[in-house]
Order: sequence, then structure tokens, then C-alpha cells
Amino acid sequence: MMAVPSTPTPVLAPRVAMVGGGQLARMTHQAAIALGQTLRVLATSADESAAQVTPDVVIGSHLDLEDLRRVAAGAHVLTFDHEHVPTDLLDKLVAEGVNVAPPPSALVHAQDKFVMRRRLEALGAPVPRYAPVDSIDDLDAFARTLGAADDAPVVVKAVRGGYDGRGVWMARDLAGAREIAGKCLDDGLPVLVEERVELRRELSALVARSPFGQGAAWPVVQTVQRDGICVQVIAPAPELSGESAAAAQRLALRLAAELGVVGVLAVELFETTDGTLLVNELAMRPHNSGHWTMDGSRTSQFEQHLRAVLDYPLGDTDAIAPVTVMANVLGAPQLPAMSMDERLHHLFARMPDARVHLYGKAERPGRKIGHINFLGSDSAELENLRERAELAAHWLSHGRWADGWDPHEHH
Amino acid sequence: MMAVPSTPTPVLAPRVAMVGGGQLARMTHQAAIALGQTLRVLATSADESAAQVTPDVVIGSHLDLEDLRRVAAGAHVLTFDHEHVPTDLLDKLVAEGVNVAPPPSALVHAQDKFVMRRRLEALGAPVPRYAPVDSIDDLDAFARTLGAADDAPVVVKAVRGGYDGRGVWMARDLAGAREIAGKCLDDGLPVLVEERVELRRELSALVARSPFGQGAAWPVVQTVQRDGICVQVIAPAPELSGESAAAAQRLALRLAAELGVVGVLAVELFETTDGTLLVNELAMRPHNSGHWTMDGSRTSQFEQHLRAVLDYPLGDTDAIAPVTVMANVLGAPQLPAMSMDERLHHLFARMPDARVHLYGKAERPGRKIGHINFLGSDSAELENLRERAELAAHWLSHGRWADGWDPHEHH
Repeated sequence: MMAVPSTPTPVLAPRVAMVGGGQLARMTHQAAIALGQTLRVLATSADESAAQVTPDVVIGSHLDLEDLRRVAAGAHVLTFDHEHVPTDLLDKLVAEGVNVAPPPSALVHAQDKFVMRRRLEALGAPVPRYAPVDSIDDLDAFARTLGAADDAPVVVKAVRGGYDGRGVWMARDLAGAREIAGKCLDDGLPVLVEERVELRRELSALVARSPFGQGAAWPVVQTVQRDGICVQVIAPAPELSGESAAAAQRLALRLAAELGVVGVLAVELFETTDGTLLVNELAMRPHNSGHWTMDGSRTSQFEQHLRAVLDYPLGDTDAIAPVTVMANVLGAPQLPAMSMDERLHHLFARMPDARVHLYGKAERPGRKIGHINFLGSDSAELENLRERAELAAHWLSHGRWADGWDPHEHH
Repeated sequence: MMAVPSTPTPVLAPRVAMVGGGQLARMTHQAAIALGQTLRVLATSADESAAQVTPDVVIGSHLDLEDLRRVAAGAHVLTFDHEHVPTDLLDKLVAEGVNVAPPPSALVHAQDKFVMRRRLEALGAPVPRYAPVDSIDDLDAFARTLGAADDAPVVVKAVRGGYDGRGVWMARDLAGAREIAGKCLDDGLPVLVEERVELRRELSALVARSPFGQGAAWPVVQTVQRDGICVQVIAPAPELSGESAAAAQRLALRLAAELGVVGVLAVELFETTDGTLLVNELAMRPHNSGHWTMDGSRTSQFEQHLRAVLDYPLGDTDAIAPVTVMANVLGAPQLPAMSMDERLHHLFARMPDARVHLYGKAERPGRKIGHINFLGSDSAELENLRERAELAAHWLSHGRWADGWDPHEHH
């Protein structure tokens, strides 16, 4: 009497191709599963983070046109887990009829800081003062415009390829900046120089935009950096006025529209000591500052990215809880004696509400290997939530509780 | 200056083997990704729901010992997406050292209704009155004990193999029951007979238990059936007294402990018109009545099942929202003209807060092909939420809005 299940016929569902097999692709795959879609990733090897968990993997390089063609073949859209694909290759794919989202004309603003700064300036978007640097004279001339002398607070930035604090050099003084810029110029690495703004903190305005033109903005968050790497995100950004938050969201939505972004756009912002918001960086893909949305928002950034690149109507971006704290798990300087599996056991024992996301990546110092979300039912819980998130992430990284907690101690 | 990512070394993470490649395995894979684990499924074909989305697939049959050995080889634990694996095969695996969760000694109570009823009776758990039926005389004798005559309200149930209303026959009267039971006996199908209780509604108490002995209970939910198939779940069950809810949770936790369940246990309950709770069925795996937890609880039943079978400490089972409604998407009698992809577009356009989970399954009449969750911020929203969930599920099934809504109408 029991029905024997027969083989279902294949289901025609959208296939999304993603360049890059890192954790962003891994988490996009989770979202694709729910929507009945197939995610195909272009990974450099079969044990990359996303390649471990999806059956549809193309092994290859994001710098190879043939590999890009292979991953795009038969997919409804080609999108990205990182922004390092040369736009000339993408232009070729577009000419061949591949639906690239975001299009290369938008993506270049997440690749080239100089192009981005110029465009934002032209759009009237607030950015730190900056200048291209083709020689040390350019650097000196820029420093003079800042009105400062030898202690000019300038930042030297690689025009391309920086991430997680790489490609950004905070010079102690003008002499230091000259040295760094000189070295880069000698190496043929294009750089620009920027004023070092007086920061209160960093914020991120995360939005999504579809080809249809629909935009959706999540609550603006605060990002906490350590050594140039994001370690914690607080959603929503505490004590940010409704006016400033709305202005940041409007700015991000406007930039998404003006640049023709398709998918998720993260607008990383400096909040200066006088409360001004300046655009620091752009990313056109799911972004670390949006990992809190996996547990803290009605629609995660990964689902939203899929919906946007496939031109679905976008999802509700409301926060689920009054406050969500995300902490990154970074590889420790020394590999802990305890396995990650054991560390996870102990974390769950101490914090049953921790929402853990691991990336399946080998542990290396400073490497992002996972993140943890904590939801708070009251924004008054924020400090406690932040402390717990910090403890949890430190534990998973180091296998040591930073507060000395030891459940096996006998007093 | 940009670091070229080198190939990560493989990460030693727990591997869970799951027998069955249906939607429960598919959704368990999503949860496994977050925990950095690998899910291996035993699927009957490569296009089964879970086999579409995980790279670790063994094609084979749950009735074949060799296939079971292959999927279990090297896995930390073997668990189930359905309960149809013969316990004699599982006993062999256990004897060979395979960690089977739940163990066959527990699982048999989800396979054999007669074994289950007897055991529950022995444990003092409330069950409907029932009797084994080896002959029509047995049936008549049971009907007499109910004190009723020819219109005795009895239900005939297959002892094994029933699900989603299959294997359950509601006889109109005693003559009808005799006819059904006679046919089953002629076919060599073991049946039992049960009193037809006066139902107020059906409830489900979902819990998880780890080998360590930890138990965790989600809020008790109401399940709404149509033609024996669950169509909607309301979490928490509305207007259930705190006392009754706690009693149901205690009962489910006690049964999990007494039966030695490892993993998720669903205790399906009848609430009779006088408010008594009777155990109807047991399931020892993630269960349809727990799909709401994917969006509505701190810990989803799929993550909890993984945590339980791997003996991790269990996760927080609190509800995220005051009320969550889950609606199943069932294949319509006729395949809609509009593709599922188009239907999804229209659903998202009308309901940006719908949390959709599709299973990648071909559409066939009455087949579960997905579900949709809706979260409400106030339990007063319940009726509206239920109506929207019903509309959304009906739309995805039929490609027609049951309320006549048509965004393209011109008035």
C-alpha cells in the first residue's frame, strides 16, 4: 500500500553562476537551495569553501576567459563572490550575450578606487579628499592642500586589489607616506592618497537593486575594525539618528541606481567626529557587513542577492530583533590544540543561542573562517551581546575563553 | 600586493550520513553547511531533492544492506530522512559498529504503529483505544468495547508504511471498517483498529534529544490537515493553555528519553473536544510540523537534528516571533501554465515577507513541493497571517490567486 517514490523529472529552475568559491558563494548556495535554484561556482579547487557544499562546480581561474565562459554557459546570470574579475573579460562575456550582474560598467567602481572616487565626486556624494599619485610631487602637493605640514595625516591606498586592510597604509607622517608611495610607484602599483579623516566610527549601508530598478535597504550598521579587518557588526548602528540613517540609505540606493548596480551593494562609510558621513569603499556582492542578515533580517543578503540578479521582486529587509551582533571568527596566530569540532561543542554548551556559520576553511592566522550572530530582544542588551559575541568568536578562534571561564575547573 | 589565495588544506569536520534524498535531507544540508559539516545522502537517483544540492551523494536503496554500508562508511553517524529502513538491516549496521541515530530500538516505534501503541500504553502515555486485528472478529470485538453498534466510529490503520494520510482509513460505519480490514487482511497487510476520537484539532510537540541525554522542546504547534495531509502549521498553537502546552512538551521529552530517541522526535497529538491530549503518531526525524522553525525559531529543527545526532549541546528553541504560520505547497491537480519561477516572481511581488522553501521536486498532484513561512509581530495578526499563508501556498500550487487578485487587471 506504500507508494514507492518514482524518480522525479528534472525541474527547470534558474541557474546562477558565481565567480569565486569562497564563503560568500557557500552562503549564497544555502539561499539558492531554499529558492529551488542551482548555484554553480567557479572555484580554484574542489576543496574551496563553496565547492565543498555544492555539486555544480567548475574548477578554473577568474582570470581565464575560457573558464569564465564555462561557468557562465547555460546559466541565467553570472555574478560574483569577489570583485577581482578583469572588466575586459567581462565585457567580452557581455558581448557574447552573457547576463553579467553587476555589469562590468558598475563593477569597475568596486575594483578601482580612483574611478570610484572620481565618479562619486561627480555625483556629489561625500568622499574624503583624495588625489591620484603619479609621483612624490603629487603626494606633496596633495598634503599642502590639506593645510598640514610634515605631520599631514594621509593614507596611501592601492588603486586596485585591496581588501581586509590590505592595500591601505596609514602613514605616521608625510615622510612615511612618501616612503610607502615611493615604494609602490617603484613597484608599478598605482596608488592614490587620501586625507586621514577624524573618525568616530565606521558604518555600512547595505542595499540591493534589481535590473527592474527596485531598491531595498537594510538598517544601517556599525562595523568595528581591528587591524583593518572587520571583527564585529552591530545592527542597527547604535545611537545613529533616524535622519542620518535615512540619509545613508538614500545615498546607497542612489549610488546603486546611478552606477547601475545589480545585486547587493555595500557602501562602507566613515562617520567623522562631527557626524558627517563619507563614502570609504564600495562592494558589489554580499558583504561581511551584511552577515548579520542571515539570522537578524527577514531576508538575508544572500537570498536578496539572488533575487536581485535574477530580477525577482526583492524581499523584506526588516530586522527580526531589536539588535543583532555579528562577530567574525578569525584564524588564531597558533592553531588551537582542540579541534574546531570540539570548540563548537563547548561554544554550544555555554551559548545555546549562538548562531554559528562556519566556512569549511583551513585555519590560518587572521583568515576569516566563520562568523557568529547573536540576537538581542532589547537594545539595552547591546553591551552584553557584544561581549558575548566577542567571547564566542575569540573562543572559536583560539580555543580559550578570554574571560577565563572553564567549566572543568574544580574550586 | 594582493595575496593570491592558495588552496586550503581539507578541514576535518563531522560527516553525517542520511538515508533518503528528499526535502528533509535537502534542508538538513543547508543546516550542515552553516555548521561546517558535510552531509552525505543515500538517494534513489541523482535528481532527488537533496541529491541536487549536495556533492556527497550515494545512489542506492534504503532496503539494500550494501548501499546502507556505503553511505555509512566513514561517517560519524547515520540518520534518516524517512523511517522506512528495516530494523534488521540497521541492527546489522549497529553490530558492525555504525553509529545509528535514532537507534533501531527507538526507530521501530516510528515504523510500527502496533509496537508504538503498546509501548506508549505501557509507559502510561495517553493513546486512543486500539486493538490489533487478525480477523474480522477482532474488529467486531473491539467495536463492542467502544460501546457502539453498527455505526461504531473506528479507524483502520496499516501497522507499517503509512504517511500523509496513506494507510489510514476512516470507515463510515462498522460495515465499512469490516470491508477495509477484510481487504487488508486478504492482502496480508497487518492492520490495527482504533477509536475515532472526537477531535478539536491536531497538535504536534517537537523535541530533540542527544545521546548525552539533553532534551529541548520547541513551542507546541497546531497542525491543520486536509485529506490527511498537513497543509498549515501555527506556532505556537493558539489558545492552548500554558499547562497543556507544558504537559505536551513534558510528554514528548519523556517519550524521547524512554524510547531512547536520538535526534528530533515529533509527537503528533489529538486534542479531543474535552481538551484531552492523545498521542497519534511518532516521527523520529525532522518533521513537517517543524518547518516553521527554519524562520520562526532560534534553532531550526534541521540544525537541531544534526546537533542531536552528533551529540552537540542543543540550541535555543525559543520562537523568534509571537506567531509563525507555515503553509505547505502541494502539487496542483493540473500543472499550472506558468512556470514555478514565474509564480515565485509574482508571489514575491505581492508578499515580500514570504519565506519560501522549495524542494526542487517535479510537481505532481498532492505532492509536497515546498513550504512558505510567515512571521507575525503580534498574535492578533494570526487570522490575517493564516489567510496570507493559504493564499501564497495556493498561488504557488495553482498559479491562481484564490482571492481573485490580479495585478494586471485594468479597472
